Amino acid sequence: MNIESLPFTLSSLRSAYAAGLKPETVIAEVYRRIRLADDPGIFIHLPEEAETVAAAAALGPHDPAKPLWGVPFAVKDNIDVAGMPTTCACPDFAYDAKTDAFVVARLREAGAIVIGKTNLDQFATGLVGVRTPYPVPKNSLDPEIVPGGSSGGSGVVVARGIVTFSLGTDTAGSGRVPAALNNIVGLKPSLGSLSATGMVPACRTLDTISVFALTVDDAFAAYAAASVYDQADAYSKRFAPMKLATPAKGLKIGVPDEKTRLFFGDEVQATSFAAACETLKTLGHEIVELDFTPLYQVAAMLYEGAWVAERYAATENIMKERPEIMHPVTRQIISGAEKLSAADAFKGIYRLADLKRKAEPMLESVDCLCVPTIPCFFTVKDLEADPIGPNSKFGTYTNFVNLLDMSGIAVPVAARKDGRPGSVTLLGKSGADGTLAGIARMLHEGAGVTLGATGWALPTDGAAISAPAPGADEMAIALVGAHMSGLPLNHEIAGRGGRFLFAGRTAPQYRLYALAGGPPKRPGLVRSENGASIALEVWSVPLSRFGEFMQGIPSPLGIGTIRLEDGTSVKGFLCETAGTDGAEDITHLGGWRAYLDRH
Amino acid sequence: MNIESLPFTLSSLRSAYAAGLKPETVIAEVYRRIRLADDPGIFIHLPEEAETVAAAAALGPHDPAKPLWGVPFAVKDNIDVAGMPTTCACPDFAYDAKTDAFVVARLREAGAIVIGKTNLDQFATGLVGVRTPYPVPKNSLDPEIVPGGSSGGSGVVVARGIVTFSLGTDTAGSGRVPAALNNIVGLKPSLGSLSATGMVPACRTLDTISVFALTVDDAFAAYAAASVYDQADAYSKRFAPMKLATPAKGLKIGVPDEKTRLFFGDEVQATSFAAACETLKTLGHEIVELDFTPLYQVAAMLYEGAWVAERYAATENIMKERPEIMHPVTRQIISGAEKLSAADAFKGIYRLADLKRKAEPMLESVDCLCVPTIPCFFTVKDLEADPIGPNSKFGTYTNFVNLLDMSGIAVPVAARKDGRPGSVTLLGKSGADGTLAGIARMLHEGAGVTLGATGWALPTDGAAISAPAPGADEMAIALVGAHMSGLPLNHEIAGRGGRFLFAGRTAPQYRLYALAGGPPKRPGLVRSENGASIALEVWSVPLSRFGEFMQGIPSPLGIGTIRLEDGTSVKGFLCETAGTDGAEDITHLGGWRAYLDRH
Repeated sequence: MNIESLPFTLSSLRSAYAAGLKPETVIAEVYRRIRLADDPGIFIHLPEEAETVAAAAALGPHDPAKPLWGVPFAVKDNIDVAGMPTTCACPDFAYDAKTDAFVVARLREAGAIVIGKTNLDQFATGLVGVRTPYPVPKNSLDPEIVPGGSSGGSGVVVARGIVTFSLGTDTAGSGRVPAALNNIVGLKPSLGSLSATGMVPACRTLDTISVFALTVDDAFAAYAAASVYDQADAYSKRFAPMKLATPAKGLKIGVPDEKTRLFFGDEVQATSFAAACETLKTLGHEIVELDFTPLYQVAAMLYEGAWVAERYAATENIMKERPEIMHPVTRQIISGAEKLSAADAFKGIYRLADLKRKAEPMLESVDCLCVPTIPCFFTVKDLEADPIGPNSKFGTYTNFVNLLDMSGIAVPVAARKDGRPGSVTLLGKSGADGTLAGIARMLHEGAGVTLGATGWALPTDGAAISAPAPGADEMAIALVGAHMSGLPLNHEIAGRGGRFLFAGRTAPQYRLYALAGGPPKRPGLVRSENGASIALEVWSVPLSRFGEFMQGIPSPLGIGTIRLEDGTSVKGFLCETAGTDGAEDITHLGGWRAYLDRH
Repeated sequence: MNIESLPFTLSSLRSAYAAGLKPETVIAEVYRRIRLADDPGIFIHLPEEAETVAAAAALGPHDPAKPLWGVPFAVKDNIDVAGMPTTCACPDFAYDAKTDAFVVARLREAGAIVIGKTNLDQFATGLVGVRTPYPVPKNSLDPEIVPGGSSGGSGVVVARGIVTFSLGTDTAGSGRVPAALNNIVGLKPSLGSLSATGMVPACRTLDTISVFALTVDDAFAAYAAASVYDQADAYSKRFAPMKLATPAKGLKIGVPDEKTRLFFGDEVQATSFAAACETLKTLGHEIVELDFTPLYQVAAMLYEGAWVAERYAATENIMKERPEIMHPVTRQIISGAEKLSAADAFKGIYRLADLKRKAEPMLESVDCLCVPTIPCFFTVKDLEADPIGPNSKFGTYTNFVNLLDMSGIAVPVAARKDGRPGSVTLLGKSGADGTLAGIARMLHEGAGVTLGATGWALPTDGAAISAPAPGADEMAIALVGAHMSGLPLNHEIAGRGGRFLFAGRTAPQYRLYALAGGPPKRPGLVRSENGASIALEVWSVPLSRFGEFMQGIPSPLGIGTIRLEDGTSVKGFLCETAGTDGAEDITHLGGWRAYLDRH
């Protein structure tokens, strides 16, 4: 194996480690790639190579039980890493972090290795990546274009294949815009699913740590490892373990309608987005055009309304005592809070609540949204000419998201006609991260693009869809009839957040009947020593929705425990023996689909 | 029937209406009682008697399907009633309400009749009832004592038996303190369960309309009728229909420990509270002493922290342009917001989030809290001497409640040794209103007190516990074995918020088996034409918890549909026929309890 050509995707690294690769070798290669990139704007702090190689060696023998064993990652420099300074791209603000941020600690527990701290728009205030007193990171694809921000260094370092993933943060779009500008994936988690302990706040009620990676699977794997409830962070929330889900067919996906689809003159971007919508249709989904005006009204509140006071609260000592240490553009934006009273803050909070309520029917009319991640592109020169206008335009499709407590993921789509990267963002409710990632994965697979700026192909060996763990907030249920995929009652499962797990068979001790009555005909499964093995599908259903589902199951059907061919058991559909009077015994057909094929 | 001695409790009025009483007669009696009370401080607006009598006559024939048909109620004068002025006890602020507040409209739909608008601490800012430019309402039991506030008129009018219930509002304790001072029930609902549309806000993020009544059943009946989701109020939340629940035995009830039990020298109140704790023990509950310091830290934020800016936001035009029209004490309090910045507001919000997180383990260690509603008593003269200090002390056990999004109910307990009313408040999570009311009801039944200032006895014919409605967020489930009341697995139902509905029997087409295996022995119910009628209990389980419950049901048991003796069907426990191999047929015993009695 030639380490210099090894893609640092998770699947590729895992295979190489299984084949004997040493993490020290990977770290040395990381440093070689850093030198090759020759971009002093990426890292604000990068330890000596020997130090990180030693840390890698200290991992000990290969431990495949650790999902991120030996995986290199970078950390945005507003998140603490023990023993490294945290600057927020404000050198005079810097302090030496004594302990890892909660999320960094979880990732290290999973075996991942910190490479260094990445550059950002100062205090995470910006979407452009140029508001930093350090050298501006170079966009990985085109150095004339801005790298995107605020997580600029974290976006570029992933796009260049230097690390497997990186941590960003996202308040207004900082975890998504750099993904769009660098042809990578930007996972913007549900608020509260990644702890903010050890992260310098921008807007504490709206912030989240985010994840950049070359693939959806890699971003999601890092996210899943880091997503642990943290009692010490008052904004941490309890979620079911995060899992990548295969999306149902026929989702309703909301997109901005003609009137509210904004590209600021970039017709190529408009064409790219229209093509992505067509791809979603090809994948079996329905595109629903929505008037995005209420969402833009929400977006306007982020910088024009009360929330800029959160940035002021986070930097108050500097703003009051040492304003000169701040980047002039950053200072100009944050100082907007000085004229706002506490009553103004509450009036903003009321207005947001009212706008949320106004947007609800629209958001509830679809399963998720799909938007262009950015409406158009800007060059570094554009930003020199106008440091604020282009930044605001970048936030068109991102600013409203955290104010509405939505989850999101930015994913590459087919490259634009002019060769610039295409990107859309899928947006859903809080907790929908796994579902959004599932859709994003299919979009990425169909995009026909290489990864970031690396030229690597998208691996096709995606992570397996995982079964519910014991104690998970979902349960597995075996289906033998009209609830199976593609059959008339499947929506009762899929529409309640159910996901397909696997197709299988019962132990050979069941009889299957076509029950009397109908149409529609219904099957009934009854355990019997004198039986056969019957085809079934196992789906997972959110525990909290199972009661509703149960209520719709008519006599003589019910839910009991079914033994599977492999000796395990699972809850599933059974029929009362008394309910099989007058029924046709179809056990010999081996399953309901075989019966349907004949009728 | 002598109308002059008719208690206006709901059960008494319903019986009288069923026996032919006319609502016009009730309204005339309401006005006679108003004249008898001779207290010009109760109502700010009272329509002419003839007008309300005409409204009552317009109800048409007796309609027992309307739960509040012909029931008179009063409305705090910060809540709109169409055709009446809304003053908030600030005459120069008054406007003529064009439409009913959402909650008033719901109550009228249920058949209730508005009597008039009641006096309050101006702009609902106060817990004393004397901060009004109108005559101060007289405490119904002792005119030297303050009536309590801010819903002073609404407390007194119920205590005097003039109306069946009244609406108050509660931000800091305004729906509870008047209850304690007038020997009545004050139901402080979960935030968002009663719409605020048509209510003048005090602190919009913390306000709720509240209900006063002479009994828990009456307060709850009005609450249940009014508790409807309102899309137009951004702070309205969707709750399952509110139902009075019979409390489980053995609840853990948290109370302030010795060190944090505050009575400001009122030893009689201390003794009264200790006695109430003993009563709770007698009712089978466990008293857990807790350090209330974190709750008091939260409470301090209400007036000392950012939230006073909400009051300022609500009265900003007056504060800026016509401050002279405001009560001087009210103005003094609200003007505290003028020095607070938007950053201060967010810092307050962060501190509250941190304190909430700190209080969580303590609150989660118990099922609910029980506190004295007020720590001590104050006279009208005390308030003349110091308009703010006594008010703050009244808020000791109330101010933290809405900041922590808790539900609460103030209920009379045994009178104090000096004859003053005893009162405790039960506090629980959001949505626990029905459970708290169930506990409050038992406390009230055991208190040995008459109602308010009326001398009437507490009716003993309590409202029936209601079955889940179609579309409710709970489902009925029939139990035939160890999950029934008092049996070993009952906690699996009761511990998931289940509630007992009724005991009954299956249709006579089932066989009951004592299954092989064990201990413990388990029964199995199987439908069979050659069967009998089997005893069962029907419980209700929250829909969202059913999945968890289902997961714990072992083979060969499952959940299917069971026919009851009365011809209806209900989901419930069934057994696979194949699972009865080797089982003992115990159908002839008619039920599992009969089997247990013999073994």
